[in-house]
Amino acid sequence: MCQNFRMQTKLLGSSAGGGFPQWNCSCTNCRALRKGELNGKSRTQSQVALSSDLKSWFLLNASPDLRAQIESTPELQPSSSGQSIRHTPIAAVILTNADLDHVLGLLLMRESQPIHVYATKSVRRILTEDNSMFKMLDQKQGQVKWTDVVSETPFELCGVDGVKSTLICTPFSLPSKYPIYVGSERASELSREEAVLALVIEDTKTKKKMAYLPGIAALDESWLKRIGSCDLVFCDGTFWTDEELKKLSGAPRTSREMGHIPMSGELGSIELLSKIDRRVTKVFTHINNTNPALNENGPEYACIRDAGLILGHDGMVFDL
Amino acid sequence: MCQNFRMQTKLLGSSAGGGFPQWNCSCTNCRALRKGELNGKSRTQSQVALSSDLKSWFLLNASPDLRAQIESTPELQPSSSGQSIRHTPIAAVILTNADLDHVLGLLLMRESQPIHVYATKSVRRILTEDNSMFKMLDQKQGQVKWTDVVSETPFELCGVDGVKSTLICTPFSLPSKYPIYVGSERASELSREEAVLALVIEDTKTKKKMAYLPGIAALDESWLKRIGSCDLVFCDGTFWTDEELKKLSGAPRTSREMGHIPMSGELGSIELLSKIDRRVTKVFTHINNTNPALNENGPEYACIRDAGLILGHDGMVFDL
Repeated sequence: MCQNFRMQTKLLGSSAGGGFPQWNCSCTNCRALRKGELNGKSRTQSQVALSSDLKSWFLLNASPDLRAQIESTPELQPSSSGQSIRHTPIAAVILTNADLDHVLGLLLMRESQPIHVYATKSVRRILTEDNSMFKMLDQKQGQVKWTDVVSETPFELCGVDGVKSTLICTPFSLPSKYPIYVGSERASELSREEAVLALVIEDTKTKKKMAYLPGIAALDESWLKRIGSCDLVFCDGTFWTDEELKKLSGAPRTSREMGHIPMSGELGSIELLSKIDRRVTKVFTHINNTNPALNENGPEYACIRDAGLILGHDGMVFDL
Repeated sequence: MCQNFRMQTKLLGSSAGGGFPQWNCSCTNCRALRKGELNGKSRTQSQVALSSDLKSWFLLNASPDLRAQIESTPELQPSSSGQSIRHTPIAAVILTNADLDHVLGLLLMRESQPIHVYATKSVRRILTEDNSMFKMLDQKQGQVKWTDVVSETPFELCGVDGVKSTLICTPFSLPSKYPIYVGSERASELSREEAVLALVIEDTKTKKKMAYLPGIAALDESWLKRIGSCDLVFCDGTFWTDEELKKLSGAPRTSREMGHIPMSGELGSIELLSKIDRRVTKVFTHINNTNPALNENGPEYACIRDAGLILGHDGMVFDL
């Protein structure tokens, strides 16, 4: 079917870790949302699913909200036509780092279901060597298949039936750190280059490309050029300003120090992304609950829209 | 206020691990529910919250669905009247074992929020020594407070403000096993008596008592007597028959071998619970997606109702 020869990308979750609202937060946004007084949307934790044939689906990271995200997405639910009562159209998960909001969903994908996980060797080691819970993915022989990925080395994504898809993923190492739970001693044994990845995925049939950057501290010339060659980019939209979390909750680090480029200001993501060709669809995701752009009546939201950018929300679908 | 002097128990989640529907399952129940053809309710993973003053809340286990469960329960959301934008009325979590569907929610309760966890020493060691991710609960000094609990040794529950509540919890060791991910070698270093607990919680002000038994392989005379002295019991309602999962998905173990008394048959929970005084409110929880009782048009559901028992569902509230 002709209609199948496209890459479809679904933004299942668009919030940073904790979601929106966040369980213990009563900031302006969370309070207004709970009271029904915000012109804005609740959001689950960041999650993307994509497919080039609408049969096999690939997850970019595995969010803690994955169970609800699957139940709100019929394409990701098991087929009822097969012989086994257990099935999934999810062929694989590609991890960009070991952050809890990107990996906890793997622990929801158990129930003896075969699953393929692409990650750097270091991220795999953190999960499988330092966290015994991940043995739940390995109850049956061959249940979980880990494939180590290497920066700037493209790999083909394999579908649910073992047949290669038309999708090729290229991971790029970003200058960043391992999650706090890894600890400095353990981190020193791991390759710094394997802490955080950005992904570029191309459909070789249509030559369409998307980039996935849920956590990036700066958009340098090489990234601006790379994004310019894509058709769709999901960009880190965690914070509005560099000092946002410091001011609101006394967090010890700035947005950039946490590995997140702020949206506003000089060399912020809005300024830089708006310079890129308007034919590239640019979508913010991984939006923190404190980000004032979540208020769709506010000047920050208008600023994003006027720059030709999109504030991502759960359930958005992009066809390339 | 007089109305505050009662124990309120909320059943926030009533399903076994995986929830209902389960992400990779197309059994009769899951398929019919997704199609909108089941006279039955979707369920999140088992979770109870209780309070004796409606200010401080205590969680029995911490389910992977806790984020959504908190957002659907205003009492568990942060106060917006305090000085800090970060707050929770959840004073503590009491763990009955180290199963993923009972502990993953702890990893959702981060964001530097102080939290008190009651568990056996062995369960604490599994989480904190064998799973580096739990360091996320310990970013700030004093953020997480672990209290080791001992079978048949009552302890007082402490409220959010550090003032003791009127609730006393007595844990009871059950003959059972550690989760599969713990492995036999590690399990041999741990006390078998600390693998699985049942809880009895009494409000010393009203003398009302509830029992929480989300996983129990058999209801012996001592348990039947203990339940008979309670006002409310949440009992393991995982499977309808002992062979249920073996037949449906080729699981290697029976219900009892997995530590779950089946509902039906000789020495099943329906037969035994129906003998207990009808003044005790008896509620099934931790109901597996495959359990035919989930179909409210079916004979199994009628059998439960006719025996004076309740098939628990999300959102139920019990005042004692």
